Amino acid sequence: MLIFHNPDHALHCPRQEMYRGRLVPCHETPARLEHVLTELRRRPVGELREPGAPDEALLRRVHAPRYLDFLAGAWSEWVALDAANAELDVLPSVWPVRGFRHDVEPTNFAARLGLYSFDAGTPLVGGSWAAALRGAACAIDAARAVLASDGPRVAFALTRPPGHHAGPDFFGGYCFLNNAALAAQALREGGCERVAVLDVDYHHGNGTQTIFYGRGDVLTVSLHGDPRTEYPFFLGHADERGEGEGEGANLNLPLPAGTSAHEWRRALDQALEALSRFAPQALVVALGVDTFEGDPISKFALRSADYLDVGRTLAGLSLPTVFTMEGGYAVADVGVNVVNVLEGFVAA
Amino acid sequence: MLIFHNPDHALHCPRQEMYRGRLVPCHETPARLEHVLTELRRRPVGELREPGAPDEALLRRVHAPRYLDFLAGAWSEWVALDAANAELDVLPSVWPVRGFRHDVEPTNFAARLGLYSFDAGTPLVGGSWAAALRGAACAIDAARAVLASDGPRVAFALTRPPGHHAGPDFFGGYCFLNNAALAAQALREGGCERVAVLDVDYHHGNGTQTIFYGRGDVLTVSLHGDPRTEYPFFLGHADERGEGEGEGANLNLPLPAGTSAHEWRRALDQALEALSRFAPQALVVALGVDTFEGDPISKFALRSADYLDVGRTLAGLSLPTVFTMEGGYAVADVGVNVVNVLEGFVAA
Repeated sequence: MLIFHNPDHALHCPRQEMYRGRLVPCHETPARLEHVLTELRRRPVGELREPGAPDEALLRRVHAPRYLDFLAGAWSEWVALDAANAELDVLPSVWPVRGFRHDVEPTNFAARLGLYSFDAGTPLVGGSWAAALRGAACAIDAARAVLASDGPRVAFALTRPPGHHAGPDFFGGYCFLNNAALAAQALREGGCERVAVLDVDYHHGNGTQTIFYGRGDVLTVSLHGDPRTEYPFFLGHADERGEGEGEGANLNLPLPAGTSAHEWRRALDQALEALSRFAPQALVVALGVDTFEGDPISKFALRSADYLDVGRTLAGLSLPTVFTMEGGYAVADVGVNVVNVLEGFVAA
Repeated sequence: MLIFHNPDHALHCPRQEMYRGRLVPCHETPARLEHVLTELRRRPVGELREPGAPDEALLRRVHAPRYLDFLAGAWSEWVALDAANAELDVLPSVWPVRGFRHDVEPTNFAARLGLYSFDAGTPLVGGSWAAALRGAACAIDAARAVLASDGPRVAFALTRPPGHHAGPDFFGGYCFLNNAALAAQALREGGCERVAVLDVDYHHGNGTQTIFYGRGDVLTVSLHGDPRTEYPFFLGHADERGEGEGEGANLNLPLPAGTSAHEWRRALDQALEALSRFAPQALVVALGVDTFEGDPISKFALRSADYLDVGRTLAGLSLPTVFTMEGGYAVADVGVNVVNVLEGFVAA
């Protein structure tokens, strides 16, 4: 296994997010990734590599160019508004509700910030863009590695910020660039005619679903907390099955809060049946471990040992596979749980 | 002139709003209305009255019932989440961006809060609903008063929170219920076949526009800061002219920051020409005085004396007229500027 590790991840070090009417410390911290690295030193399941330069043309085929341009310049614009802003994270506070226009891009910074976001829980700081860009490079390089004739059959994009909530032109849920979608697109462009994305994060992969909703060449499957009660809400219902050419190429398996490891596993089997029917030539796994029983912001009940089984099961698909690092906020346990998936996979 | 004054306005006394990544004190304070009352005692241009009970059936013809139900219960739900919330204003932090669903109402409070809002600058507190409801009653009673056979030709709904940013099913811009729209609807139901709403607040009347966008019986006209640079953004462009039966019944006159009183007056004349062509049988004026040169969050340059002229000019239309109290944040000058409009009107 190759592990593409983002050396710049800690440049994205936000301070505060809005939660229930107050500013609270961020759950998504650099320590999360450091715990994975520590565990990988203890259990070296693969070779660590740094990524090359990001393929910006590929980025622009997954995300809207005007969105990428906004993200690239956001911090400079923010500080230009007021030098004191250098000490503050960027958080949106006004957005276009239904009926408002998206076709005219305002010149005002606060307006564009709201235009391109869906929450005030995703602070952008001075290093966010550099970190996100290098993380995207990890995902693209991981995809290319598993397609190389002499490459491994599995690679891991070990990065943060995570990606699966980032849409074609919106950020949110701690995500700016959709690493899983970038990996899937790189697999498509690398010659795979059909690619599947399996999202096992506790939270619905709303960004990934939106990116591929109209496409039949990428199957998106997500197991997650029921969006009626669980973040990120608004998408992830069972009746969302894709549209146009993508009709039938999206599967949501929402599960109630309190879902046990056993029940979760049954949903995973259902997901794998859908994958088999689609017959993909490569797989991307959006790997969140916030399904863990100890996660502070999620409500499933997987134990650490269950993640070994998840890895073994996914290996059984015998597909070139890219893992991308998504959520997981029981910080001290993130390393063990992530490496359990990887170890289960490579040991299978 | 009858002045329906909201005795409960101060129940809506929010503390903090999100602005540029931080929580800052609210601009929209009870003192604004008290300054108007003080000035009305000095210059009694009309008779002060308290409103009757709000016509809730009429409310449900302007706003979506599920939105009203949400607002009515929001504070109780908020405090039920955590007793400590009683000390905090309610502010949304996640919302449905384009592509997300509005048709499934989540059960989660934070999700419904975001579903029904467009900014995090409109804190809801324990008394917000009672204040908004009583304010709506002022607007409805004002409309009914100007239609009464023995009534005055002009009435003023002196209330807060303001209303013109509240849409069919969303709040924002300090507004929860759209008082101007409620007055217009009451005028329609009182027998006027065609009603015009003229919005002279600095900020585009995005809520009012949205409520009537598909209707040909209510003309909406707004003079305001260009939405490319000025809050509330996303709506208020000159090319928004209504749709369906409402095609041609919406006029936006966006003006650049720095617009002088002279230039603003030329735009008002343009608005009045459109009104004349529409030939309404009654008029609602969404009266914001944040066009004032001293306003801390706006960028036009009207002086206090200009508001006398605005009132005189509007009286010249010789229509049953309802004024609703909207914005204006140069708090100490709000009273003089508002009463100047009213005095100009009644003296004409």
